[in-house]
Amino acid sequence: MGERTVIGVDIGGTKIIAGVVDERLEVGHRAARAAPSHSQVAALEAIVDAVSEARAASPDPVQAVGFGIPSLIDQTRGVPVTSINLQLAGIPFAALMSERLGLPVFVDNDANLALLAEQRHGAARGAQHAAMLTIGTGIGGGLLFNGEVYRGAIGAAGELGHMVIDQNGPPCQGNCPNHGCLESLASGTALAREGLWAAEATPDSALGAALLQGEEITGALITELALGGDRPAGEVLALIGTRLGVGISNLVNMLNPEVVVIGGGVIAAGELLLAPARAEVASRALAPSRDLVRIVAASFGPEAGMIGAALHAFEGIDAAATAGRRA
Amino acid sequence: MGERTVIGVDIGGTKIIAGVVDERLEVGHRAARAAPSHSQVAALEAIVDAVSEARAASPDPVQAVGFGIPSLIDQTRGVPVTSINLQLAGIPFAALMSERLGLPVFVDNDANLALLAEQRHGAARGAQHAAMLTIGTGIGGGLLFNGEVYRGAIGAAGELGHMVIDQNGPPCQGNCPNHGCLESLASGTALAREGLWAAEATPDSALGAALLQGEEITGALITELALGGDRPAGEVLALIGTRLGVGISNLVNMLNPEVVVIGGGVIAAGELLLAPARAEVASRALAPSRDLVRIVAASFGPEAGMIGAALHAFEGIDAAATAGRRA
Repeated sequence: MGERTVIGVDIGGTKIIAGVVDERLEVGHRAARAAPSHSQVAALEAIVDAVSEARAASPDPVQAVGFGIPSLIDQTRGVPVTSINLQLAGIPFAALMSERLGLPVFVDNDANLALLAEQRHGAARGAQHAAMLTIGTGIGGGLLFNGEVYRGAIGAAGELGHMVIDQNGPPCQGNCPNHGCLESLASGTALAREGLWAAEATPDSALGAALLQGEEITGALITELALGGDRPAGEVLALIGTRLGVGISNLVNMLNPEVVVIGGGVIAAGELLLAPARAEVASRALAPSRDLVRIVAASFGPEAGMIGAALHAFEGIDAAATAGRRA
Repeated sequence: MGERTVIGVDIGGTKIIAGVVDERLEVGHRAARAAPSHSQVAALEAIVDAVSEARAASPDPVQAVGFGIPSLIDQTRGVPVTSINLQLAGIPFAALMSERLGLPVFVDNDANLALLAEQRHGAARGAQHAAMLTIGTGIGGGLLFNGEVYRGAIGAAGELGHMVIDQNGPPCQGNCPNHGCLESLASGTALAREGLWAAEATPDSALGAALLQGEEITGALITELALGGDRPAGEVLALIGTRLGVGISNLVNMLNPEVVVIGGGVIAAGELLLAPARAEVASRALAPSRDLVRIVAASFGPEAGMIGAALHAFEGIDAAATAGRRA
């Protein structure tokens, strides 16, 4: 391990993952917890619990904790302002965690942090114009313009999962009032829903058999069966990938990025998701943006958010040290 | 009139408008021509003709010409790279016009120039984060981030009219391979199409009567009848406004702008279009972006593109003069 150690925490709509990360971005112990979506107290306890487990398992002293949260963050106070899938809005998250953990705490939006990790050391390395989609329970988004994360007028930019791709589409989830957004059609939640329908419709398939045996039809199961050659499972991933391609076409036409990076748990499906997405972009987006853009999986895969949170912690303690030397 | 005079030219999918503009942005003579969409030679002749008429009518010598073109522009050479509704791609437009007119020529994307006019002197005055939609035959787009027009990796950003809002929607027009884009559902072309259907369905309405009398159902006619109280005409505008609101919701969620400015010929309908658009944004977009954003008509109305082209010409001759003093 390198000389300094932090903990990076990715707080998703379903899972909390805290990883011990050194300066070479090698990840040691990973602690996972379910994310309680209906209780603020339970959510905070689960977060503290995951960080404590990771900290106890770290061979070196932990110097800071970085958090990626699926929320708009008020950066001046470290307070999540809104939160689609978790009950974290309005609480002084950074101050509270810092007090509970006795460590410096740095907080940003999870997708912004995933994009940071990918632009510094991953699939978007060196890009000046990039977009990131993190596909898990929901769909998070991050934007990089002229080499900098773009936050909009008051820091709320990048809600790419809540762009409408089907104005008559299904209602979105959590606190989102929209319908037909990308999240309602191409998130892990949508993948599981489409997978359940496909399982019901094809009892002779591996997917159908899993349902009959009482297994829960999750994105992970669909991906596993599709990778094993089950056709209905593959078709469900292709459907989700095609919808994703509609959203990526919008990013390409509107923003002309060099690269669109796809992360989050669902990217475990890799090319089963990306190939149909690229085909959709090829058929919809405008030249020359369409011909320039690369559409790629996150180098850090589903861990991009956690690695980005760790990077944010390293940069936070560096900035604090610089400020201290100046003072 | 002020001391310097330029000509601003807005080249739309249907109309070319050349206006004599002074430094106070007062517009003198306006010359209009139909835009021939199927012949490059005819399009260039019509443009030269409009500029020549405006120049002949100018009380003062014209010092430069600014052009707004519905194309991605290669700024290093003044060459339109792509063009959805006109046959201008690939020709050395700036050099050719400069030679034909014997005047300095400055070229940019039409919607970028409309946004420039609105941000400097109009509805987005002083905004650092803004988006503009220019709704005519097609839908153009412009983006302003951190006070600067955003052009993306290679200058092709801002094709906001080609964001999909209905993945199963109708084919787009011109050279756009997409379907269900905002342009296919909420442009002036879509407005006329929906108006025709409404006229056929309601022969007793003013709109239906106009059709029976052999009038062409245009956006201008629909707007005129709706402003006069004809219900089917008003409903058609509300439908287009609602669809526009879906696209604006996407801009709000993705980019968190302070203001979204709507220009182009169709904005002559004003609140008949904007009120339903705002209602749709209120029901779909996320707080706090939704509560912050202003959705307003272009101060320069359908002339924002022409005024922006004139501003671009003034700034072009200023920059050339500065460069000359430095050399």
